[in-house]
Amino acid sequence: MDFTVETATDAVLDSFRETKDQRLRQVMESLTRHLHGFVRDIEPTMEEWEAAIGFLTAVGQTCDDTRQEFVLLSDVLGVSMLVETLNGAESTVLGPFHMTVSPHRELGESIDLLGTGRPCVVSGRVTSADGTPLPDAELDVWQCTEDGFYEVQQPDVQPPGNGRGLFRTDDEGRFWFGGVVPSHYPIPTDGPVGSLLRATGRHPYRPAHVHFIARADGHQPVTTHAFVAGSPYIDSDAVFAVKRGLITDLTESHDERDAERFGVRAPFTHAAFDIVLATAPEATP
Amino acid sequence: MDFTVETATDAVLDSFRETKDQRLRQVMESLTRHLHGFVRDIEPTMEEWEAAIGFLTAVGQTCDDTRQEFVLLSDVLGVSMLVETLNGAESTVLGPFHMTVSPHRELGESIDLLGTGRPCVVSGRVTSADGTPLPDAELDVWQCTEDGFYEVQQPDVQPPGNGRGLFRTDDEGRFWFGGVVPSHYPIPTDGPVGSLLRATGRHPYRPAHVHFIARADGHQPVTTHAFVAGSPYIDSDAVFAVKRGLITDLTESHDERDAERFGVRAPFTHAAFDIVLATAPEATP
Repeated sequence: MDFTVETATDAVLDSFRETKDQRLRQVMESLTRHLHGFVRDIEPTMEEWEAAIGFLTAVGQTCDDTRQEFVLLSDVLGVSMLVETLNGAESTVLGPFHMTVSPHRELGESIDLLGTGRPCVVSGRVTSADGTPLPDAELDVWQCTEDGFYEVQQPDVQPPGNGRGLFRTDDEGRFWFGGVVPSHYPIPTDGPVGSLLRATGRHPYRPAHVHFIARADGHQPVTTHAFVAGSPYIDSDAVFAVKRGLITDLTESHDERDAERFGVRAPFTHAAFDIVLATAPEATP
Repeated sequence: MDFTVETATDAVLDSFRETKDQRLRQVMESLTRHLHGFVRDIEPTMEEWEAAIGFLTAVGQTCDDTRQEFVLLSDVLGVSMLVETLNGAESTVLGPFHMTVSPHRELGESIDLLGTGRPCVVSGRVTSADGTPLPDAELDVWQCTEDGFYEVQQPDVQPPGNGRGLFRTDDEGRFWFGGVVPSHYPIPTDGPVGSLLRATGRHPYRPAHVHFIARADGHQPVTTHAFVAGSPYIDSDAVFAVKRGLITDLTESHDERDAERFGVRAPFTHAAFDIVLATAPEATP
């Protein structure tokens, strides 16, 4: 009956013995073991425990309709990327700015509604793992402005849907759209996660990138980024999302045929980025 | 540079290398190892990760001036008791209802301002570990009513300060005060922690008890409970605070001298509960 440092974990594990959902039981037992392991490891003072409670409470209370500070905390601790990677090697973090539905757009349309940045054409192909092009795949795209802000962060400056678009690939699985060269930018630092980064001497920056979610029938969706090669912070993304295969060169294209196809004038800035989707488990023969 | 399941933890650990506060660095490194260990262990789906983010957010947003749902979560996972026990073997959880300052009261005064429960005298002595009585020790006491509610839960029913008192021990380290026999009661179940208990088949009850915080010059303060022997749930406290040495018999006393000293009529219900304070580390010669 006595609760001691020695019996504590077994007592809590035993409390979950009546859990009907076996997956939930497994999660709670693992959480108990790892959480108690952390507490035994650091032996927090009462003041440190209170500070932790206060921090988590502030993280929860910083969340609202357009801000998810717990996702941000998960991101800066590498947990989001770890979960994404465990779920599919090609996936990266969703990030905290995918809060609204992107507007449907036609291939070739620009997601830049401001016209102030350096234009950039993004093109590529969505294929299956064996190289088969995937027509009519859905591509959800979002990016920040050349100043490093997403639409949801600047409702008074950016028109609704700026930097966002929902596209469908053509018969050959291809997509292309206009945008601007994105900037590196800081994750929001005015909340508890920003305080944590300052206290630990970490910078809040993400290297420049464009976000993608690709979905196609019979395939597993992928959340990914195209990172701009040579961007500041490419080696120290605050949310750990950079993978070598996602780094994309920006090129000056002089190809007149491409220019015509993309509806721009040569020379133009171009990023080529292909996306591979794994077959959905239930669709495997 | 690649973030993989294998390199993930080292990448996050490395991000804390510039932390100036070495204790904070130790805490963040340990947190990273244990949190990543948990994630690798359970391999959450994206939906499970989102559910976890949603749960933690709801816990934060359930907190207000009179409710601390993260403390409650820490309590039901045995973390609060583990931290208390690591900080002093005699300590127990503070619980979620110590939200206000208790009113100063004279020894012998009753903390029951309603007069509806079964009266009970609590008496005892605060001593140092070597048995030396500690005069003028401060004793912060709080208890629920015979219906199982604390003052902060029933601002419309209970007068301010009901079930609470700040006492000072006499020249011989003794204290005594009136109250009512407390009831077992459920922790708040209308928030996310209540949902967690339901989903895991756990009951929300705590066995009947009176809370104490004792403080004396030159000694470490102690947060503790006197548990009522034979109370329902004495073997399955939802927050794991029961220790054998804290279980207290309620006796019917016929002692006329005690009755006179306590200002009641014999026979009366009596709980005797002594509190031992360890010498503060800085006060050790």
